[in-house]
Amino acid sequence: MMFTQITIVGAGLIGGSLALALKKAGVCKHIIATSRNEAHLQEAVDLGVVDAYELDIAKAVKGSELVFISTPIGSMATIFDAIKGVVGEDTIITDAGSAKLCVIDDAKKVFGALPPNFVPGHPIAGAEHSGVSAAFAGLYQEHRVILTPLENYTKPEAITKVRQMWEHAGAIVSEMSASHHDDILAMTSHLPHMLAFGLVDGLAQLNDAEEIFTYAAGGFRDFTRIASGDPVMWRDICLHNRDAILKAMSVYQKDLDELKTAISNQDSQKIQSIFTSAKQARDHHILKK
Amino acid sequence: MMFTQITIVGAGLIGGSLALALKKAGVCKHIIATSRNEAHLQEAVDLGVVDAYELDIAKAVKGSELVFISTPIGSMATIFDAIKGVVGEDTIITDAGSAKLCVIDDAKKVFGALPPNFVPGHPIAGAEHSGVSAAFAGLYQEHRVILTPLENYTKPEAITKVRQMWEHAGAIVSEMSASHHDDILAMTSHLPHMLAFGLVDGLAQLNDAEEIFTYAAGGFRDFTRIASGDPVMWRDICLHNRDAILKAMSVYQKDLDELKTAISNQDSQKIQSIFTSAKQARDHHILKK
Repeated sequence: MMFTQITIVGAGLIGGSLALALKKAGVCKHIIATSRNEAHLQEAVDLGVVDAYELDIAKAVKGSELVFISTPIGSMATIFDAIKGVVGEDTIITDAGSAKLCVIDDAKKVFGALPPNFVPGHPIAGAEHSGVSAAFAGLYQEHRVILTPLENYTKPEAITKVRQMWEHAGAIVSEMSASHHDDILAMTSHLPHMLAFGLVDGLAQLNDAEEIFTYAAGGFRDFTRIASGDPVMWRDICLHNRDAILKAMSVYQKDLDELKTAISNQDSQKIQSIFTSAKQARDHHILKK
Repeated sequence: MMFTQITIVGAGLIGGSLALALKKAGVCKHIIATSRNEAHLQEAVDLGVVDAYELDIAKAVKGSELVFISTPIGSMATIFDAIKGVVGEDTIITDAGSAKLCVIDDAKKVFGALPPNFVPGHPIAGAEHSGVSAAFAGLYQEHRVILTPLENYTKPEAITKVRQMWEHAGAIVSEMSASHHDDILAMTSHLPHMLAFGLVDGLAQLNDAEEIFTYAAGGFRDFTRIASGDPVMWRDICLHNRDAILKAMSVYQKDLDELKTAISNQDSQKIQSIFTSAKQARDHHILKK
């Protein structure tokens, strides 16, 4: 048994799925959930996702070998504040925030210095539905998890434990710097969300929006699927990964300008070469997955 | 029986699926396919998609009550030229080009004036795979078809026949001006393609492209699905619907700038309002479909 007890802060899809995966792998004896919403916590227990719940976060983390924080990124500082002083000195802390520099900043501010047992992490997984009722043990299977420990600072044993935990859940674990993580996620996840939100909002503002959406077909549906994401969660990601997102948007705007110029100039060769490069890259990197 | 004989120019997914749908509806006795590729034509006959084929387009259209042109948009002028003088005076001509002003211009140039029996059309349907082997009778079921006849010019009987033909194939038919069609499609189809092609090409040009694509998840896969489209077909659409596409891109760039400014200013309320408007519009117009 890898863990006798762990605590999951935030009883939703991400925390619930990790609990189920660890239970299934038989590596954790007791899993306690905590959050501010008792109905969600009760649901998590009723569904057999966790063993028990505690509304009082201080009580919930007591005696746990690992605390996994899977709350919205905007609430990290509050959570750190609530566990400060009550979490055991050897307790490993890790999280699931989709931007990492800001989480590290929040931890530094609250704890004074980054706890050496804190291993910032980000499971790159999600599903169309959220909430603990959508949780399933296979969510992380073959999915990537990025850990962003501080070099020569974060305790190697803590990193190893968090890595093993994710591997037990079926994930493929990598390590990189928080700033590199934030750049990569800005480009592959945050930027596409900005583009999709921007497109749908822009069309919705037009006078003939109703008619326009009538003629949107399957391609549009796929392209804009991510624009049905949670506005508050995405607002928080924008606020917490601002610099990397702005950088990615600027690079993109330049690329789009280039394509626009090619179309304007009827530069057949240039247009075709952009499209061919895109198709080849996608077919090669994404379709083969 | 609505038609004794029709001719389908271009033996691919679009033409093949219409042939199958009309056969299934029992509204056409004899369907002849023509194209420059004999292997494709033979395949269409072997698969039972059409009844016969003719390499010589002049022979193929002879005696047909309707000619359906489903070739790439860049080849419309060549097709018009090939059927000019050989197509019967009462024969209805219609097409499947995804931009309409350019097709009308091509027809005007070749025929001197737009043939009154020509009903420009665009079935808004497609599938992941192309070619006649991917054709199926249900492709147009519940899909939109837009007809763009010239007001007070195109023969009403021709419009009615083309409308009925598509309805027999299961489609929902609307009429609008060619220029309005081109604007709407630029926004709902061509613009999203530009954005997806632009994003994937942009990422592919980066030094760490390989690593970046490694961490792309399900959202990215959906968002970029349309970037796996045929580069030549999309190049031709850019060249043939240039003005409407450039206009849509400019509007979009303005919207994106607005979002960027909001993120840069950490304007929490503005960001959330853009995302909420997008989510509501998509959930309302697209998810309910």
